[in-house]
Order: sequence, then structure tokens, then C-alpha cells
Amino acid sequence: MAQRTDGRVERGNQTRRAILGRSMQIASVEGLAGLSLGRVATELRISKSGVFALFGSMEELQLATVRAAIAVFVEHVVTPSAEQPAGPGRLWRICWDWIGYSRGRVFEGGCFFARVSAEFDARGTGPIRDLVATANRDWVGFLEATAGEAVETGSMRGGTDPAQLAFELNAFLDSANLRSLLHGDDTAYDRAAVAIADRLRAVATDPADVPSPT
Amino acid sequence: MAQRTDGRVERGNQTRRAILGRSMQIASVEGLAGLSLGRVATELRISKSGVFALFGSMEELQLATVRAAIAVFVEHVVTPSAEQPAGPGRLWRICWDWIGYSRGRVFEGGCFFARVSAEFDARGTGPIRDLVATANRDWVGFLEATAGEAVETGSMRGGTDPAQLAFELNAFLDSANLRSLLHGDDTAYDRAAVAIADRLRAVATDPADVPSPT
Repeated sequence: MAQRTDGRVERGNQTRRAILGRSMQIASVEGLAGLSLGRVATELRISKSGVFALFGSMEELQLATVRAAIAVFVEHVVTPSAEQPAGPGRLWRICWDWIGYSRGRVFEGGCFFARVSAEFDARGTGPIRDLVATANRDWVGFLEATAGEAVETGSMRGGTDPAQLAFELNAFLDSANLRSLLHGDDTAYDRAAVAIADRLRAVATDPADVPSPT
Repeated sequence: MAQRTDGRVERGNQTRRAILGRSMQIASVEGLAGLSLGRVATELRISKSGVFALFGSMEELQLATVRAAIAVFVEHVVTPSAEQPAGPGRLWRICWDWIGYSRGRVFEGGCFFARVSAEFDARGTGPIRDLVATANRDWVGFLEATAGEAVETGSMRGGTDPAQLAFELNAFLDSANLRSLLHGDDTAYDRAAVAIADRLRAVATDPADVPSPT
């Protein structure tokens, strides 16, 4: 009996993962407004009531989709950088992995957060907009904290403003993502890598900490 | 008789301007998909058939809206820079006017082109997407040509890559627009101004050509 229950729970978890996997891809192209319980059910050939049983409402599915995308982003862009010692080399690694995450189309529509930020920036209030805005703040805050750490450890020049540096690195990344999507050419990623490497080398105590972008 | 016809033509032109004025504002917040002939007619209290008579189709209205937004953008950001002599000071003026255009919410939803680029970047084909992509290319091309001119006149260092500089300036501007919209705070514009002034001073033959951003 316990085994049968476990089996059902496991199937539920698998279905949940499949739904969120599909939802993230749809939302990365069309935004969270492109999602519907019925559409996800049809695409995955499961019943709409099955999707409803797992998520309860459209809003719950949208929130779960953003949370799942945060986990994917962290796995691709945040976690690997822990291998690098604190310093400009770690910032470089984060930006390089971000470029790989966008360029490699982990999400079909490029960066998931660029899409949903543009979707919610000028409209709406409520929990989805709040979660998207918080995810953005957390990401830029992570860049800023990493830069601050580099200054503290002496591997980055004392006068460097971590918040300003985080703003600039994020701007290069976002712009490369958008331009690659809009013009269907990847040279914007190369420009972003050049800009980021130049910027980091200019503030690194030892410029050799930042690898060549090519 | 000729006078009566002229009067009708003039009224048609006024209505056309009113429709495009409203359409640009709607699209800057909700994207071009937020437009409909019926909605524009209702908001302006004119007949839907009147809107249809002037634009013929939804696609025609969307194309005319993008063209009208290009004219507004040129008026606010491109034209005034002609007063400045070629050089880093002219690039600064363009970026400064862009910040004023976004920050001052000439369009309710911030930069019109940021909105519609994000709307079309990962989807669709056809004349609207083409026009949006061309408008973006033209804008970054204008920055690049202005930078190239500055190098030719010797007011910017010889080794400067105009395309790379244009990419970076545009990235700062776009990012400030998005962050201001998403977080409802304007400090991102100050960060962009600092980044742009630093970048331009670093390549200017005479750094005094670039005014202080504050």
C-alpha cells in the first residue's frame, strides 16, 4: 500500500516536472501570458484536470514556472562560479556562463528573465510581477556581492563601485541576448565578452586574473 | 468645393495623428499586440469604421504606429545632436537625450523600441518584425557612424572600435530603461550616465569634450 502510494507520488512529481519543463520553454518565447493549463495539457498529452490537480490555478502554474526557471538559471550561471576563488576571475566566470546559458538557448526564447521582465515591467502588480522583480534584484545583487568580495580580498581596486560594475556587466549581457534574438546573429555575444573582459581587466589588481574572451 | 475637400482631408489628417498618438502610447506599454482598431476607436470616441477607413487593417495600423514612433524618437534623440560638432561630445549629447526621452516617459511604457523589440525578438516573421529590427539596426548604426566620425576627425582615439562602442552605449541605455520600469526607481539612469561618460572619456582625445554626468 505504501509502495503504491509512493508510486503515485513519484508519477505526480514526474508529471509536475514535465509540465514545468514545457511551461518554461513556452514562457521564454511568448511570456507567461502564453501559458494556459489547457495548452500545456494538450502539448504533453495529459488531461487538463491532471494539470489542474497539480497546480490549482493559472497563477500557481505561472509562479511555479518562474521558480523552476530560477533553479535552472542558478544551476547554469551561479553554482559553477563557486569553483573560482573570489575575485575578478569569478565575475568573469559568471558572465561567461551567462553568455553560454543565453547563446546555448537553455530556454528556446533566450534568457527566461529578460522575456518575463519585459512582459511585466510596465504593467501589472501582484505576486508574479513581484517574483520576477525580486529574481532580477537577486541576480544583480549577486553580481554586486561578488564584486564587493573581490574588492575586500584586494583582487579588485579599492575605488571600484560594486553596484556600478554590476549594472554595467548586466547591461552587456542583457543587450547581447536581445540583439542575438532580434537579428539572429551571435556577434553580440562576442561584443559583450570583449566589453566585460575590458571592464574587469581595468579594475583587476592583476589583469591576468581575467582570461582573454576569444 | 476644393475648400470643402481640403477641410475633409485636414480632418482626416488630424484623426490619423490622434489615432497614431494613442496607438504609440498603448503599444509602448502593452506591445503592438495590445492594439486593436476597436479599442483605439473606443478610446478616442470615433467610429471603428472611421479608423478602418484610415488604416485599412490591423497590420497597417501597427506599421504606421512604428513609423510614427520612429519620427518621435528621431525628434527627441537624433535631431538635437546635430547642434554639437562631431566628436565624443555629440555621442554624449545623443545618449543624454536618450536618457531624457526614456526617463521623461515620452512614451508611457518607456522606450517604445525596447517594448516592441522584446515583443518580436523571439517570434514572428513579416513586415512588422522587419521594420522593428531595421529601426534597431538604424539606431545602433547611427551611434556607430557618429563614433566613426569622431575617430576620423581625431577627437576620438584611433584604436577605438566604433561598433564595439555603439554596442556598449546602447547596452547601458537599454538596461537603464528596463530597470527603471521594473523597479520603479530612477537610479539606473544615473548609473547609465556615469558608465557612458566614463566610457567616452576613456576614448576621447580631450576628455573635457565629455561633460560631467551629474
